[in-house]
Amino acid sequence: VEQRQIIVASNRGPVSFARNEAGQIEIRRGMGGLVTALTAALELCGGLWVASAMSEEDRERAARGRIELPGEGLEFGLRYLSFDPAAFDRFYNGISNRILWFLHHYLWETATMPRFDHDTGRAWEDYREVNEKFAAALAEEGDSMRSPPAYLVQDYHLSLVPAMLRRRRPGAHITHFSHTPFAGPNYFRILPRPIREELLAGLLGADVLGFQSSAWVENFLLSCRSLPGARVDLRRRSVAWEGRRVPVRVYPISIDPEQLKEEARSAAVQAARRRVTDWLGGARLVLRVDRAEPSKNILRGFLAFGAFLRRYPQWRRRVRFLALANPTRSALPEYRDYLDRCRDEVGRLNRELGEPGWEPIEFSLKDDHPRALAAYELYDVLVVNPVIDGMNLVAKEGPALNRTGGVLILSENAGAYDELGKYALGVNPFDVDATADAIAAALDMAPDERARRARNLRAALRRNRVDRWVTSQLKDLERVHS
Amino acid sequence: VEQRQIIVASNRGPVSFARNEAGQIEIRRGMGGLVTALTAALELCGGLWVASAMSEEDRERAARGRIELPGEGLEFGLRYLSFDPAAFDRFYNGISNRILWFLHHYLWETATMPRFDHDTGRAWEDYREVNEKFAAALAEEGDSMRSPPAYLVQDYHLSLVPAMLRRRRPGAHITHFSHTPFAGPNYFRILPRPIREELLAGLLGADVLGFQSSAWVENFLLSCRSLPGARVDLRRRSVAWEGRRVPVRVYPISIDPEQLKEEARSAAVQAARRRVTDWLGGARLVLRVDRAEPSKNILRGFLAFGAFLRRYPQWRRRVRFLALANPTRSALPEYRDYLDRCRDEVGRLNRELGEPGWEPIEFSLKDDHPRALAAYELYDVLVVNPVIDGMNLVAKEGPALNRTGGVLILSENAGAYDELGKYALGVNPFDVDATADAIAAALDMAPDERARRARNLRAALRRNRVDRWVTSQLKDLERVHS
Repeated sequence: VEQRQIIVASNRGPVSFARNEAGQIEIRRGMGGLVTALTAALELCGGLWVASAMSEEDRERAARGRIELPGEGLEFGLRYLSFDPAAFDRFYNGISNRILWFLHHYLWETATMPRFDHDTGRAWEDYREVNEKFAAALAEEGDSMRSPPAYLVQDYHLSLVPAMLRRRRPGAHITHFSHTPFAGPNYFRILPRPIREELLAGLLGADVLGFQSSAWVENFLLSCRSLPGARVDLRRRSVAWEGRRVPVRVYPISIDPEQLKEEARSAAVQAARRRVTDWLGGARLVLRVDRAEPSKNILRGFLAFGAFLRRYPQWRRRVRFLALANPTRSALPEYRDYLDRCRDEVGRLNRELGEPGWEPIEFSLKDDHPRALAAYELYDVLVVNPVIDGMNLVAKEGPALNRTGGVLILSENAGAYDELGKYALGVNPFDVDATADAIAAALDMAPDERARRARNLRAALRRNRVDRWVTSQLKDLERVHS
Repeated sequence: VEQRQIIVASNRGPVSFARNEAGQIEIRRGMGGLVTALTAALELCGGLWVASAMSEEDRERAARGRIELPGEGLEFGLRYLSFDPAAFDRFYNGISNRILWFLHHYLWETATMPRFDHDTGRAWEDYREVNEKFAAALAEEGDSMRSPPAYLVQDYHLSLVPAMLRRRRPGAHITHFSHTPFAGPNYFRILPRPIREELLAGLLGADVLGFQSSAWVENFLLSCRSLPGARVDLRRRSVAWEGRRVPVRVYPISIDPEQLKEEARSAAVQAARRRVTDWLGGARLVLRVDRAEPSKNILRGFLAFGAFLRRYPQWRRRVRFLALANPTRSALPEYRDYLDRCRDEVGRLNRELGEPGWEPIEFSLKDDHPRALAAYELYDVLVVNPVIDGMNLVAKEGPALNRTGGVLILSENAGAYDELGKYALGVNPFDVDATADAIAAALDMAPDERARRARNLRAALRRNRVDRWVTSQLKDLERVHS
């Protein structure tokens, strides 16, 4: 069988446009497993990527029609959909980031948050509207192809697209993949009933549903048990819905180690490596790299490092903690407050525990990818302790680049724990003292044990190549239709 | 078969001792379904109640040995166990109230809370120690009875007692009942693994486990799936554990309407009724009665009442909201902060919406049981909107006493919703606007519809008599052993 062409739909596209200081429009390439995996699949099968115009410059560029960027190594079409900025804000911040992201990451202090009201209803209409425009664009683009494409719909921003597209094109081949966790069935019931039923029914419009780990598959299935008309088979992991049987499967996303190594050979990374080495001044390196996001658990990471220095004073002056955080969603007050608390804690800990000539923690809030890659090569301990996380690619990128037999400390609540947990030091992310002990255990680990674990981590990455993520979804999609 | 004698174990006993203003020790009788139901069962079968000495006066009284209080209508023995006050505080506030209660009510903002550390480990040892002392006392008391008793162990404070008692007396007849919800399996995993496994294994030491509603039974079973050695049967609702099969069942607790009506005939309640009527000044009454507790959702209740007055201005000056909150756990900063926010919100709403001679909301923070009973008789609308709640007995007490065809607004997340939801106006407790609309719908409801619902609520209370709660647990206990 010849492979069908692909149409990818995601809120954020593989590139974005922004004006540089000279006033010219620049192209910025997105990162992460999603872009890598889907770009490769699109280049192999041919097709199109449909995304939201997120910035003013995206909208300007989108107004000129379909975008072709072969010079950027993107040998496929891009179509950016433009929305009214206020409506897009309600779709993106109002529903996607403040409600669905918080929901799936258990971020609410439920005694006071969330509060659903008239604004929620308004924002939900915008969410529905943006999803509807995606569905319309996908149907239209599919019609113009030489044969019906496979639609790969991405993430919680576009939960309603599968059912909306199915209504327009009943025979369409559709997958939906959730990059986030999925909330447990009780927590999911925080949503108003009409919204939660619309979300589940929206997703079940797909032929195949994908998640990063078994835990999220199970949560989704358990939530579907309260959806009128759905019949859930927990053992076979499927939902009978509107005359179809929808399989719900685990497809753990991965990275491309070779591409990452290629990037790490750049002059910018080499320069960054010298700067990090100088900064270390011979000390051992404890590292974390994250989006600056409450669910990443940056605050408890600092508390744990403080507890480590108090409990293991022999390590003072011999180790430094570098925390690289990439700013994100700074429009949300919860994010700004969280980062303020992180900064305050770092200040407090450096005053309490620092000594002349030795500041234990550096917390850097900026987008500096070369520095992150350089630090990956150098770390002795990599702390990946999210409260909860769909997958967490830092846990894969770090071991792929590290050259020093560095030890991975990994939250049991990260999707990556399924694949990598047995070669990492697992921690309960809420347990500050256990995390402190894990840092000490990592630093004290015998060299051959460190080397063995590092080898096993790299072998695990080779076993789950990034292209398998798409191909296994496409294979399951064909199976449903055969 | 002759009914066995009973030994009840609960943290708080049926009475407490306190010094009055004249310096004399007074006996205070506890309230609620637990005391009513277990007192009745103990009087029927004979036996003993074992509880913690909570106050200084309790400890003084406990030092004098077993307590007999036939004059108080308690025709059975009481034994109060004394603990070191600091250790008891860690057991009670440190673990039971700040960890287990928060866990089962989804009260953490997980990005920053909880944080487990050395203090948690210390407090957990005290929790274990208190539970061990209960188990020892229960074993000893059982040995002194004419034949082996049935042990009825109560609630999240005593989760480890069933297994500890089973180790001491392998053939003992033991039930454990959880008056709270039980957290979903993901949320339950917030606890450190050793603690969560010890909790589940502790409970599974019982022959029969009881919960208030199906949702909590299901959550408990799902959590047990990750307990090594346990085999969960979701359909039959049981757990195979250490060679026994433990049924996990729903026993919805109830109240005694006759006893409540008796109390309402007192002079204190009649006086309170006149005061509430005067305060109303002819306006309709929207009422809530709660322990002053974040999970009761008092804050969103005020927000909803504010939204109601803005959306339905025709009701201004014609309705008042009386919120009676009984102080509780004021040692916990989370509780004090929450009540501060509630008070601020009431002040803000009264300033925004009040008019000369009409203050829309009264928020009373004191223990005034006669006023609550009086207000039950008089309400037009009773708001019971907990974020989540094991059962919620206000939803039963109110309709039992109400004389005005008052309408019950009931959270879908209260255990009571299983029994009473279809005669109430159900609300999603997070949905402020939906709650506002429910208040309007309740006030506008036609008299015959109100009367029909009130009749049905009273009939539901008659169907599930409070004595059935104990007898069905005892029956299931005999079945397991036969």
